[in-house]
Amino acid sequence: MEEINNIEIVPCTESNYLQPFRVSYNQNGTKKSWDFMRTHDSVSVLIFNTTSHCFVLVKQFRPAVYMCEWEKAKTKTSQPAEKSEEAEASESQEGQPASAEESSSQLPPASAGVTYELCAGLVDKPDLSLEEIARQEVLEECGYDVPASKLKRITSYRSGVGVTGAKQTMFYAEVSDDNCVSAGGGEPREGELIEVVKVPLHEAMTFAYDERTPKTMGVIFSFIWFHNNMSPKYKISTNV
Amino acid sequence: MEEINNIEIVPCTESNYLQPFRVSYNQNGTKKSWDFMRTHDSVSVLIFNTTSHCFVLVKQFRPAVYMCEWEKAKTKTSQPAEKSEEAEASESQEGQPASAEESSSQLPPASAGVTYELCAGLVDKPDLSLEEIARQEVLEECGYDVPASKLKRITSYRSGVGVTGAKQTMFYAEVSDDNCVSAGGGEPREGELIEVVKVPLHEAMTFAYDERTPKTMGVIFSFIWFHNNMSPKYKISTNV
Repeated sequence: MEEINNIEIVPCTESNYLQPFRVSYNQNGTKKSWDFMRTHDSVSVLIFNTTSHCFVLVKQFRPAVYMCEWEKAKTKTSQPAEKSEEAEASESQEGQPASAEESSSQLPPASAGVTYELCAGLVDKPDLSLEEIARQEVLEECGYDVPASKLKRITSYRSGVGVTGAKQTMFYAEVSDDNCVSAGGGEPREGELIEVVKVPLHEAMTFAYDERTPKTMGVIFSFIWFHNNMSPKYKISTNV
Repeated sequence: MEEINNIEIVPCTESNYLQPFRVSYNQNGTKKSWDFMRTHDSVSVLIFNTTSHCFVLVKQFRPAVYMCEWEKAKTKTSQPAEKSEEAEASESQEGQPASAEESSSQLPPASAGVTYELCAGLVDKPDLSLEEIARQEVLEECGYDVPASKLKRITSYRSGVGVTGAKQTMFYAEVSDDNCVSAGGGEPREGELIEVVKVPLHEAMTFAYDERTPKTMGVIFSFIWFHNNMSPKYKISTNV
């Protein structure tokens, strides 16, 4: 159970992580411009434990998701009545730092910001192959030590086409309890607080389509991919 | 065939579209902070034309995707040799505006920035239901006029959990040639230059997994969803 408090929001003009750029260009003779951000490509890994017949996911508190929910809660609270002063202040770009403490009655529970995701990581080590990077993430986040050669490429696609346009490559890794060398949980030095979660195969499709459980599309897509491509091997029947 | 030229990139400190914020908070007693951006939730629609047995997608030039490819092309060109001055300049946050003209030999073709996507739009009209917003996008982008009541909700999920955390809701719409009232193409006033593209049902799974065709995960996931849930109705066999 996560405990989240002392929330403060400030405009952020010098982020090391989010750096907007503007590109101007001519498209078929029409002058256009677009704001975008540079980011790294990424890898994600669907992990299936063949000992327990479970998928291995990560679960973590995502500040960006939480702030979305907080925003919605504020909007609901302030309608149809006028917006509260607290809400106004925290919406202003130039305003003073807004403290969520002041409007704590509107704070959603921490669980509103917790999402289920595939094990994943950024492609920020130019010397490593995608498979090697994926392998490291499986080890760091989920505690399974599998050789890169056992990672099967599922496919790749573009994410955030409006803002980042980065390429994501998805892999599939079969692991067994024998490969489990640690509890996982990410790199505390990098501020990661990751919980490793198992989803039994026979519950996977129900989990995938249950909208009450916040998750990424990668989880849904990969579970269905497994259902279509791997299920015969494991002789199970699942409901799609 | 898109023609893209006169590309210029500048750091962007006052974007109306990308506004970084920083949230600080305590998680289980540990002080943390995270940079994020506010954005709108969105809807996307898998459109299936029952007259032609085709999926209807949109295809457009995405500056953010193009810039990713340009960045990679520059990195490749400048390795193992040292980076060119042009590349350095355009990478600098504080640098002068960088002109892609100077290093035009490194410019990827415009097609490197073109992606195939589901018809989609932002949830930025608080008075409209998700279905109504989806209906408008189907009309504006693809030219089909279908009642909101005919939109079937597939599921929802979180996108960009590291940066925006917005909620995306995916719908399915069956249309016929009779519903086609215009050519679509988006709102030119909003700078949209969208091409409507049909993918025949019998080619859909090959299309979904062909990594040479840049696309979003939404396209891949929704095609597989259709395969699993709708194909029996249309009595077709597809290869997954």
